[in-house]
Amino acid sequence: MDIATPLTASKAEALSLRYGAGATPEAGPWNEQIAALLAHRSIRGYRPDALPAGTLETLVAAAQSAATSSNLQTWSVVAVADPQTRIEMARLAGDQKHIMQCPLFLVWCADLSRNARLGADEGVELETLPYFESFLVAAIDAALAAQNAVVAAESLGLSTVYIGALRNDPAAVAARLGLPPGVMGVFGLCVGYAAHGVANEVKPRLPQPAILFHERYGSAEEPALRAAYDAKMVAFSARHELKQDSWSQRVIARMGRLPAMGGRDRLLSVVKALGFPLR
Amino acid sequence: MDIATPLTASKAEALSLRYGAGATPEAGPWNEQIAALLAHRSIRGYRPDALPAGTLETLVAAAQSAATSSNLQTWSVVAVADPQTRIEMARLAGDQKHIMQCPLFLVWCADLSRNARLGADEGVELETLPYFESFLVAAIDAALAAQNAVVAAESLGLSTVYIGALRNDPAAVAARLGLPPGVMGVFGLCVGYAAHGVANEVKPRLPQPAILFHERYGSAEEPALRAAYDAKMVAFSARHELKQDSWSQRVIARMGRLPAMGGRDRLLSVVKALGFPLR
Repeated sequence: MDIATPLTASKAEALSLRYGAGATPEAGPWNEQIAALLAHRSIRGYRPDALPAGTLETLVAAAQSAATSSNLQTWSVVAVADPQTRIEMARLAGDQKHIMQCPLFLVWCADLSRNARLGADEGVELETLPYFESFLVAAIDAALAAQNAVVAAESLGLSTVYIGALRNDPAAVAARLGLPPGVMGVFGLCVGYAAHGVANEVKPRLPQPAILFHERYGSAEEPALRAAYDAKMVAFSARHELKQDSWSQRVIARMGRLPAMGGRDRLLSVVKALGFPLR
Repeated sequence: MDIATPLTASKAEALSLRYGAGATPEAGPWNEQIAALLAHRSIRGYRPDALPAGTLETLVAAAQSAATSSNLQTWSVVAVADPQTRIEMARLAGDQKHIMQCPLFLVWCADLSRNARLGADEGVELETLPYFESFLVAAIDAALAAQNAVVAAESLGLSTVYIGALRNDPAAVAARLGLPPGVMGVFGLCVGYAAHGVANEVKPRLPQPAILFHERYGSAEEPALRAAYDAKMVAFSARHELKQDSWSQRVIARMGRLPAMGGRDRLLSVVKALGFPLR
């Protein structure tokens, strides 16, 4: 099975894969880099093959090139290659086997501790550190950085998948990785070569009119748009021999009941305990 | 002044611009897409030129192709082209003139309201919606999406700048854009053609050993790394006729005192009032 959609996929083809028939937007300018972005899929099965030397440094250079609020650089990344640590990370993230398979697991951290150390060294109290805004900036900037790393990885023929379940037990992650107060792993990222035969169809998304608004928010069209997308996702899941659920059924399964959060219903108190007062 | 670093910039050149002499990492695999990521700079001056037809739809297709937690798609984007609305957005974001200049201003929203409407329509209470985790997922997924839009825009020769100051007064932004409860603009993004003569040097970042760790977090080297970076940032600001501050001085100016937050010290209560209980 061919893993990568050819970068030369036509615009019509790329949009059709991403939105499904009858829902392709009237996109304008196009190039191979944009085609590559549209070809993204998350991969949950990896070969053990090592990455070429310097791959991590290349990905982090891309990550650091993303924008960062006021150049504060309030994020860090811990690269986990050690198999024992990956086994432990997999266990903490709901036994996701791909964390054990991939040669490189990146833990992206909101990190206010570096700036706190700077203040301490300079003898200045940084009054803004305890605020909710500062944590949010750190989490958002970590996400901007990580997404650049994903784009870079995919351009090199590598695959990735984000691991939100790293937030099931961030205190245990912090203990294992030696994160000081003011640092929290906000999500993980598997990086490696996709295993042969891993399901690789681009997943359709909601049609653009359901998420893109002009000048003002509006949801009048939403019921019809959702019904059409539900039908598309039933067909998509059927093709992949998953439970044949609509998007609505999946959302309800994932968001309906607290046990589906895998412990993340306690996240607020855990984040505070990790040194973010969220004032 | 030439705005774009040639995509054919050599690896050594691109890394030198991003990290400065003496701090370039031993990066490995490389290609033109990665060179383009490294050439990123935020642009704060725009020509009024309109974007080609369909540009917005292209950028949003790239954005929707980013990963989204459990395919929940808990973000939306409001495209603001109307000059009056951009004037208002600029005013709310600390009078940033580039919001008035750029032809397209995107307001990226954490959006749990679509999923809430889904639950209501299906007669199911989504118990997880009020939790801190759900807001965080929405904000992170909005960031992943926005970064893909930025990469796509820059690949088309467009420039961007994120506007975190949109969080100075998110309630006013919500009122102006008709955002329902459970939707919040987490940041803005200017998109357009860079004005001629806008400062365009790639901004150096902290050396990789200050933010990238192997297996475990560590900050033993940090004081020396920060001192070297401080010197680099003094030289960078001198070349741009800004106040000749070190990075440490900038961090202290930005994070030291609450008035520098532009109102964002109230963000926690504002987010709650916008329909995110953050339980």
